Amino acid sequence: MRTTTTRVAACQLAPAIADLPANAEVSAAAARAAISEGADVVVLPELVTSGYVFTSREEARTVAVTPEHGVFAAWAAACTAREGAVVVGGFCELGDDDLLYNSAAVVDASGVRAVYRKAHLWDREKLVFTPGSAAPPVVDTAHGRIAVMVCYDLEFPEWTRTAALAGADLIAVPTNWPLVPRPDGERVPEVVIAMAAARVNHVAIACADRSGTERGVDWNEGTSVVSSDGWVVSEVGTGTGVAWADLDLTASRDKRLTEHAHLMNDRRPDLYRAVSPAS
Amino acid sequence: MRTTTTRVAACQLAPAIADLPANAEVSAAAARAAISEGADVVVLPELVTSGYVFTSREEARTVAVTPEHGVFAAWAAACTAREGAVVVGGFCELGDDDLLYNSAAVVDASGVRAVYRKAHLWDREKLVFTPGSAAPPVVDTAHGRIAVMVCYDLEFPEWTRTAALAGADLIAVPTNWPLVPRPDGERVPEVVIAMAAARVNHVAIACADRSGTERGVDWNEGTSVVSSDGWVVSEVGTGTGVAWADLDLTASRDKRLTEHAHLMNDRRPDLYRAVSPAS
Repeated sequence: MRTTTTRVAACQLAPAIADLPANAEVSAAAARAAISEGADVVVLPELVTSGYVFTSREEARTVAVTPEHGVFAAWAAACTAREGAVVVGGFCELGDDDLLYNSAAVVDASGVRAVYRKAHLWDREKLVFTPGSAAPPVVDTAHGRIAVMVCYDLEFPEWTRTAALAGADLIAVPTNWPLVPRPDGERVPEVVIAMAAARVNHVAIACADRSGTERGVDWNEGTSVVSSDGWVVSEVGTGTGVAWADLDLTASRDKRLTEHAHLMNDRRPDLYRAVSPAS
Repeated sequence: MRTTTTRVAACQLAPAIADLPANAEVSAAAARAAISEGADVVVLPELVTSGYVFTSREEARTVAVTPEHGVFAAWAAACTAREGAVVVGGFCELGDDDLLYNSAAVVDASGVRAVYRKAHLWDREKLVFTPGSAAPPVVDTAHGRIAVMVCYDLEFPEWTRTAALAGADLIAVPTNWPLVPRPDGERVPEVVIAMAAARVNHVAIACADRSGTERGVDWNEGTSVVSSDGWVVSEVGTGTGVAWADLDLTASRDKRLTEHAHLMNDRRPDLYRAVSPAS
């Protein structure tokens, strides 16, 4: 880690359904703009290159890309404007196996560093995508170890714990949170879940949600950056925009709470049989 | 489950350090009062019979009791005033092995139904208590399946998941949350963690915190009842008092979120190796 302050930009965007050229430009422009304003790490929404509300697997296939697609070269080109810059964003992936995945790429100036395939598919995504079967990658970058997971993945505490145990300093979460009801004055429920995940793991979390009604679906517009203490330090609110936060990501590496309390060492993995894989 | 509405009373009390007779009366009086006002389930704080800030193991031993102690008979007597009433509260337990445990009892009119020993000891508790080595019990009561865990246990998502997978409708959490800083307008951080745990497991959670400065230690006074949707439906605020909530605990049994999404079936336990016990 070269710096102790990392400028994070979580971008709330409004991609267009099934319009790959337009979304490639929207996403690359957002990355360029954020990096030109000093962003070290840019997080873009889930499926930002494709839109979300597909009518069929066939429609999704028309905008599915491999990690060799030019959109990632455009994100990488954006990263060249600032030393060490990183972009994380979601895309509709066409796998070598000809299956579709709801994926996210971690990109820096050198190109695509990692691709993650969403392991917990939400609702009708199951009719379009194949779930991933690998843990969230934790990528060593100039700004520390960046893990990536997508949307509903965040709601499985086993998954955030897995990333934290693997050494994540920041969990980047491209997301599309469909609008759900919440009581007056309350935060978006997924943001509450992010706050808790950050605090119990002492890891920073940056969630990039989307906006823009798509085929009748609205969104929570919950783009937020959460510190490793579990507090929301920046959010966008309604519409497109950027949540900016200056984070000391080295803080995520200290899991000690007091002289005698340590978030990870206090775990009792020998007792966690009910949450363990069948063996 | 006999009823579909369960009246929960989470009591924020101020026990006195190392004064067993006084605390026995304070706790039994709180249970009697809540049940006389219609409570079906009463949750009392952690170590309500003993106080918390012990100077030594020896001091704690002076107020350690077994489940046969009269205080539990007094809680059970309180339960006789309302059919099916249940009291859950914390105590300093003297084990058969002569060790001390930070425990909680689930009591109804028939007596002590279960004793749980805190598995995740906070900070200097490690100098006084032996950690428990059993999962949270899930007790079948007239008001559904009530699980119990204590304070810091709640901050381990593996533990709340374990209780939910074991069928808990309500997790009762006797707690003593020492005062920690939080930004203006934010909830007590442990309450945020409870909200997330409730939502990702679709289980209700009732936390009974304490108040009253004890040997220089103040408390978050975060007593709250959280619905299975993850929203705080009742809280006490500053000082002693009761958080009342009428909950439909049968709601906790439906883990379906949409036609194609289900909180428990969507888990990927085959992938959760990093959070599983060594095998």
